[in-house]
Order: sequence, then structure tokens, then C-alpha cells
Amino acid sequence: MALPPAVSETSFSSAIDEFTAALGSARVLSTAAELREFRDPFQFETWDENAASAVLMPETVEEIQEIVRVAARHGVPLWTHSTGRNNGYGGPAPRVGGSVIVSLRNMNRVLEIDEECAYAVVEPGVRWFDLYEAIKAGGHRLMLSIADLGWGSVIGNALDHGVTYMPYGVDMSAACGMEVVLADGSLLRTGMGAMPGNRAWHLYKRGLGPTLDQLFMQSNFGIVTKMGVWLMPYPEVYMPLWLRVWRDDDLAAVIDTLRVLMLDGTIRMVPQLMNTVLLGSVLSHRDQWYDGDGPLPDSVIDKMARELEIGRWIMRFALYGDEPVLDHRFEKIRRAFERIEGAEVWGTKVAPEDIPSLEHPAERIQGGVPSLDWNNMTAWYGGEKGGHIGFSPVAPLVGRDASALRDLLRTKVEGAGLDYIAGLLPVNARSFVHITMVIFDTANEAQARSAYEVSSQLVGDAAALGYGEYRAHLGFMDLAAAQYSWGDHAYLRFCETIKDAVDPAGILSPGKQGIWPASMRGAR
Amino acid sequence: MALPPAVSETSFSSAIDEFTAALGSARVLSTAAELREFRDPFQFETWDENAASAVLMPETVEEIQEIVRVAARHGVPLWTHSTGRNNGYGGPAPRVGGSVIVSLRNMNRVLEIDEECAYAVVEPGVRWFDLYEAIKAGGHRLMLSIADLGWGSVIGNALDHGVTYMPYGVDMSAACGMEVVLADGSLLRTGMGAMPGNRAWHLYKRGLGPTLDQLFMQSNFGIVTKMGVWLMPYPEVYMPLWLRVWRDDDLAAVIDTLRVLMLDGTIRMVPQLMNTVLLGSVLSHRDQWYDGDGPLPDSVIDKMARELEIGRWIMRFALYGDEPVLDHRFEKIRRAFERIEGAEVWGTKVAPEDIPSLEHPAERIQGGVPSLDWNNMTAWYGGEKGGHIGFSPVAPLVGRDASALRDLLRTKVEGAGLDYIAGLLPVNARSFVHITMVIFDTANEAQARSAYEVSSQLVGDAAALGYGEYRAHLGFMDLAAAQYSWGDHAYLRFCETIKDAVDPAGILSPGKQGIWPASMRGAR
Repeated sequence: MALPPAVSETSFSSAIDEFTAALGSARVLSTAAELREFRDPFQFETWDENAASAVLMPETVEEIQEIVRVAARHGVPLWTHSTGRNNGYGGPAPRVGGSVIVSLRNMNRVLEIDEECAYAVVEPGVRWFDLYEAIKAGGHRLMLSIADLGWGSVIGNALDHGVTYMPYGVDMSAACGMEVVLADGSLLRTGMGAMPGNRAWHLYKRGLGPTLDQLFMQSNFGIVTKMGVWLMPYPEVYMPLWLRVWRDDDLAAVIDTLRVLMLDGTIRMVPQLMNTVLLGSVLSHRDQWYDGDGPLPDSVIDKMARELEIGRWIMRFALYGDEPVLDHRFEKIRRAFERIEGAEVWGTKVAPEDIPSLEHPAERIQGGVPSLDWNNMTAWYGGEKGGHIGFSPVAPLVGRDASALRDLLRTKVEGAGLDYIAGLLPVNARSFVHITMVIFDTANEAQARSAYEVSSQLVGDAAALGYGEYRAHLGFMDLAAAQYSWGDHAYLRFCETIKDAVDPAGILSPGKQGIWPASMRGAR
Repeated sequence: MALPPAVSETSFSSAIDEFTAALGSARVLSTAAELREFRDPFQFETWDENAASAVLMPETVEEIQEIVRVAARHGVPLWTHSTGRNNGYGGPAPRVGGSVIVSLRNMNRVLEIDEECAYAVVEPGVRWFDLYEAIKAGGHRLMLSIADLGWGSVIGNALDHGVTYMPYGVDMSAACGMEVVLADGSLLRTGMGAMPGNRAWHLYKRGLGPTLDQLFMQSNFGIVTKMGVWLMPYPEVYMPLWLRVWRDDDLAAVIDTLRVLMLDGTIRMVPQLMNTVLLGSVLSHRDQWYDGDGPLPDSVIDKMARELEIGRWIMRFALYGDEPVLDHRFEKIRRAFERIEGAEVWGTKVAPEDIPSLEHPAERIQGGVPSLDWNNMTAWYGGEKGGHIGFSPVAPLVGRDASALRDLLRTKVEGAGLDYIAGLLPVNARSFVHITMVIFDTANEAQARSAYEVSSQLVGDAAALGYGEYRAHLGFMDLAAAQYSWGDHAYLRFCETIKDAVDPAGILSPGKQGIWPASMRGAR
């Protein structure tokens, strides 16, 4: 077992004893078998850069406060995850080998659901599944904007700038008001929560003075233990929609049309525009289509497009609201997209109560009903050990940019012998995140290494064109952060100035998104 | 002239010499006549708690960087304003007497207007008037969400969490991407702007790592020199609307109905619900109605309500979009509110091009056409020296809360012999800011003192009921911040930990929203 850097065996052993005194031995995991579940699930199995030394499973805020105090005394680096399911970016594993993981999976209480003001308050271990079930069990006519996979954490997703798809997914705007354990073990509440007994903690997004919520996202300044999340009252009608086009180069026209429809509010949610192989990987396996070497040729992709009836690009999206408004908007959307030759738009109106019985997983996801169906895509290369790396730059929601990014990514990924698997997610009317699913067989070391290498190269290639990652894989966090170098790295220096001030012992998730404590900056 | 605290005459004089060397003497103001314009415009004239010692008028980012370096060398506190028009909260004046004001009024360039992605980039001195004119001059079919008074700064308003009224006013969501001068004179760009040449700086609201934009709002961690602001493409139709009710106690039903219509997206902008005296003060003068002692009696308010045809509560709001959608929404809104006995809803559909010719200033403001018409209200008590203090707590958008807050505020303000003048601004579907206009005659010292005293008392009274200020007047900043005391003042301690780290000399706007540098914490 790897020890954390610069921690002696004696210190580490004392820390483990004190963690055990606080939590009981059953909630301090340290055997190889216990730790296996907390590795990067897609890393080749003999690689061990990101292996933890132990995992702590606190169940209360007080236990987290005690963990932080113990870690500070012994200089032991912690790495926090909520449920640790951001698998395309490293899953539950720590940036620094030997870190002690603080897993919040057992802090999984839904603390409050308020139907009048349409919000919930949850702990970090609450998954999309859990909150969905709690809303249903309470008989609330409220919908939750969810991510693609139901096992993810509501808080964890928000803290990593994760995307969800309903109207509150636009600009990731569902989170409101946090409670945070700081590095000295004290407890802070953000926004209006900083006032004792305040009635608007989870209703108003700011407080008096600077708003700290986004400072605790994609950072290592504290451990979030509670968060408010806004819910949407049942609309009269839910209408999942599809757009399909048949030529790869229709991409630019789709994006430009979509921008206009999002800017004027006709579409107000987060669509997902998928290339043939992305949706194809959910619906089928690669060996049904091709057994040659290298990436799928265009002719095979065209065959998939036709036979699966998913086109070269297909967009899932949806409308929510009153039926007359939806009817008007659907016609407007149809007319706008059908100016593209061969484009088709279709959809179905359903009552919110009937969403769980929809057949297509995408239609359930956009309707807030969680599942694991979308996970099928990682099995693309066969076997049970499919994995992927997410490479995810942000670009203007402009056809020229979408084409330029596609050209770069397709060329590079296919150059590495892999398939170009693309999901474009317009998170607002002006920009989209290009999720590149670099899928590989984790049992195939050569393929895994190739996937890591091309993903790593893409960081700099995309930055050279003006596109930066919205979230980075453990393996390229420093490289991704290094691209944000304007003003002699002013942003990173400012973040690390804060880091040193609020976590002087440098124990909270060192290296997260490239932010290091003073004591470890040499490791970058 | 007051010197800043703990600055010797020699140091101060050296600093002024160096400021003069950097800017030229014409842009370093220090005579009593020059400084008069930079006082709190509503403070009684012989009070001098917040008088500046000098005013600097930089015109470039480099000049601001030099100012900061000089100030740090000599320990001279600076106080920045953009245009300094937040008059209800202290205007251009500094929190600490003797501070040197950095006035950004002359940094007033509109740097970019992008019609394709519907945004602008502005400097801090750009007023609503300026950006509106620049959009018009460029022939862009874009609308700007503005505040009530056109002389305000686009950036200054955003930095103080100021309210605007169009759809991007919801959750104050128009700002995207900043450039900031830090206390050491270095320059930082937030979000995607931290990457050189990034194409999504003003399009995507975050970056890689924690998002800093809201950390630079209502704080004193840097001087914002550029900001992106999102604009709205012309809708097919703009429809300003009015709701009028006749009984003071209709307030709760109006608020509860409004919440439902905002939660479901039928109304998506920031309404303004005004009591009789608020709109009455825009449309008339107090002496037309009453010359007795103390606050207006209910009988007089009822008379105003009838004769001005503005009811006991009147709400200005609006729809923007396609005509069939507006027609559906208008009918839905009308039916919902007209369940309240005597309530009336009306409105007019206009083309965006025709907004400037609308007669009612409210209908122009909600349509993005700036003016100073709304300023008439400060003349309520007659004379040319009308002033007001804004006391502005946040509450859930729930009828019970609205009634409780009105009861508290009306009782206290009238108890101080003043009129209760209320504007309720639902800044999202779940909460509203209760702007209490404590209006007084600034030439009447007894009345001015009474206004300050009652405003100050209200800070604690409102907090005791669970309502916190969204923004505080210079005179009560510390008191307002002290209410945010949860966890032994964890929020303020965290902010001041950051303050000491990023501004060790403590020169940037000390005391802003209650945040003090280490050297001045004794002054709190």
C-alpha cells in the first residue's frame, strides 16, 4: 500500500488509529480488496498512480469535521468524493497516490423536500435514484433535472460542473445554498444560510457580500455536506423531441439553427446532439458493424446511421409546458430545422405521470427518470471491461466552431486508431460542451495507453484553437489547468493564494483541477 | 480634508504625488469643490463620516494597476466605484473616511457588441444609457436588461447584485466573464478568459476550476475592469402588463399567485410590485395629498389609490416572445390573478422597435429603454433635496412571508414618522427583494436622522424574523454583515481570510459589505 507523499509510517499509522477511534473500524477501509472499488474503474489494472491508502466512510457532519482535524494534525492528504461516479474523469480515485479517501456515499439523507417553493435539500451521498424516489414517495408533483446515469450524486455532479438536461440544467443552475466543512474543521453556510434562521437559504442564490457557492465547485477549499437543489413543478405536458440529419457536414447548420432557437427561448433545456457512433454505442455493439483494424470507416457509419435510423447526427431534446405553447414551439422548431435538406423533427406529447413508462432511455432522462441504460456505451469494444475517458472542451454555439472542433477531434482520435464518439451539449444558448467519449477496452493495455495518450495530446491541441476543457480527467488535470495561463497563470496563482490561506496544511484534495497546496507544488 | 486612518501626512502626500505622476494633475481631484460630487448625495451636509480625501480618474487598465501599486506602497485605502450611482446605499462615497476614490466614470468604452451570440463587453464607466445607444448605433436587434435609472453602470450594478428586469434579470444572470486588477497590480481574467485566446470567455459562465466571478461581486478582492453582458435578441412582441388590486391585504394572494406563474415559466422576468405610495411618488408629490403630521393615513392612501388609479398594490411586469405564446400566457395570467376580488390585469402588445415611444416609464424600463423618470420619487417630501435610504431584505416568494415583512416594515417606518414606500422585486420564482424606500428631505436634519435610525433598527428586526439584506447602505454595512453570524461568523471569517491573502496591504475598499483587512478590523 502506497503512503501519501511526505507522511511517515508512524504519522500515517497514528492518523489511521485516530480515524478508527472516530468512525469505528468497520468504516475505515484499508485492505486491498476493500480499496479495489475505489480505484479509477477504467485505469489499466496494473497502473497505480491514483491508488488510495485508505477509505473513510463518515455518516455525519461531525465525523467529517473530526476527520479533517486528524488529517491536519498528521499532514495526511484527503480526497473527497460524493458517490465517486464521474468515471470518465477518474471515478472515486484521488489525484495524489496514497491519499485517504473521504467517501460520502453513506451520507445519503434527503433532508427536505418543499413542494410550495419547489426545492430539496440533500446530503452528498444522495444519488439521482434516491432523490427521485423520495420525491415520488412524498407524492410531490415535482421533477428533478438529472444526469445520464442515475447512480451519480446530486451534489457531486453539481460540484464538478456536471451537466443535467431539464430547464434547470441550463447554466447548471439548480444548486442553491451549501453547508461546507472547512480545512480547520469549522462549518460554514453560504448565501443566506450564513444568517441563523434565514428563510431564503435555498431560495435566493446570493447573500450579503461575495457569493461562495461556485468557489466550492471544482476546487479543494472545503467539503460540501449539504446543498439545496431546485425542482420543477410538473408541466402540463412533456414533449421529448428528436432531430435527425443525414450528412456529417449538416453539423454546422444544426448548431446555428439551434442557437437561434435557444437565444429566443423556444428551446429552454440542455439538448444532446450525438454523432452516429455515440447513440449507436448505446443501442448496439461494435462487432455487429465492423471487425477491421482501426476506426470505423465512413461507409460503416453510414450503414449504422441508416439501419439504426439515427442519422449522422441525432439530437435529443424536449419541451415542457402548456400544450398550446408546445404546439406553437414544435411547429416553429420543425420549420426551422427542416430547412436543412433531409432533416426530420419528431416528438410525442406525454403527461408527466407517464414518463416512467417511456421506452427510450433518453426520453426518460430528459423527463427526470433515472436509470443506468445510457451506460451501455462503454461496452462498445466488447467484453465486460469497457472504459472511457471524457475529453470535454467548451466552444461557442456557432456552426464554424462546431465544425472546427469536430475536425480536430475526429482526426486525432481516429489517428490513434479509436472511434470518434461525440456528444455536443449546449449548456446555454451561447456555448456547448463537446463530450468526446474516448472509449477503450480496459483489459487491452495498448488500447488503454493509446486512449490516454490521445486524450492528453488533445488538451493542448484544443487550447491552441481557443477551446478549454470544462472538467479534466485525473490523468491530465495539471495539463488542462496549465492551458489557463493568461497573465502569467494569474488565475491559478489566485486560486492557490486562496488555497494556502484557507487550507494551510494542504490536506483537502491536493491537485484537484490543478490547484496544489504550497507543500506539494513541486509535484505538479 | 480628512486623511485616511493610520496614514501619515508625509505618506499621503507622497502617494498623491505618485498618483499625479501617473495620471496628470487634471485627473487627481482634491479640492472641496471637486470632492463634493463624490459624497453620499443624501447624507445631511454637515455629516462627514464618509468623505474621501481625493478622487482619481483613471482611463486605462494600466493606470489602475499603477494606482494600486502606489496605494500598496503607502498603505493608502482606495474605494472603487464604477459610476457611483447606487445612491440609496451611499452613492460614490467610501466606507472609510479619508479613502482615495478610484472613479471609473471615464473608463466608458463599449469594447464589443456581438449580434450572433448576443452579448457585449463593457468597461465599468459604461452606463445603461451608453450601452443602449451603442446597440442602437450599431443597428443591432438586441435588448439590454436595465435597472430603473439609466445613469447607473452596467458593471457597477452587477457587482452590487443590483436588479434588472428583463429575462436576464432573473437571478441577476446577465454577467459573463470578467477582467480584474488584483491588489498587487496584476491582472486576472475569470472563467474561460483565463485561457489565452479562448473563444468562450463571455459565452460560458465557468472555467476549469472554481468560478471566481461572484467572488468579485459585493467584495473588495479586486477591481473589475471589463465584463461580458448577455443581451436578448428582439422578441417578436413585447407586452408590458399591469396588475392592480384594491386592498392592502391582497398582497399575500398576489404573491402566492405570482410564485405559481413564475415557477412554471409563464412569467420569466423580474416584476416590480409597488404599494400605492411607491408608484404615487413617481407620479405625484406628497403635498398634493396630505399636509398633516406623521405618515399618510390609510384614508389618504386609499384616495391616492383611486385617483391615480394605481390601487393599493400595483405590479408592473411583462411578456416577451412570439405572439401566440403571449396570447396564451396573458389569458392564463389574467385568469389566475382575477381570482382575487377586484383584481385587474391589462397590457399592450408592441413591436420592439416601438418601445422608445411608450408613454409610461415602467413600460420603457422593462423594454430596456433607459431614462431618469423613475428618479422622481426622491422628491416626495418636496424641495430639491429629496433623498432615500434603501433597506432591502430578501424573503421567500410566499404570501405569509410578504405579509410578515410588510407588517414589520410598515409599523417601524411609520413609527418613525415616515411613509412606508415598498417595492417587492421577485428576482426569481422563489424569492423577492423587498426594497423599502426610506425617503426623507436631506435638508431636514431631524428627518434625515430619523430615517437613518429606523433603517438601522430594521436590520436586526428583519434578521430576527429570518430576512437578510441583499445589499447594505454604507451606514449599516457592518451591522448588516453582523447578522450573517451562523457558525460563529464563519462566513465573514472565511471572507476575511481570503481578504488578507489576496490584499495583504488592505488597500482595496476596506469595510465593503463588512469585510475588513486585518489592519482595520478594530474599526468595525
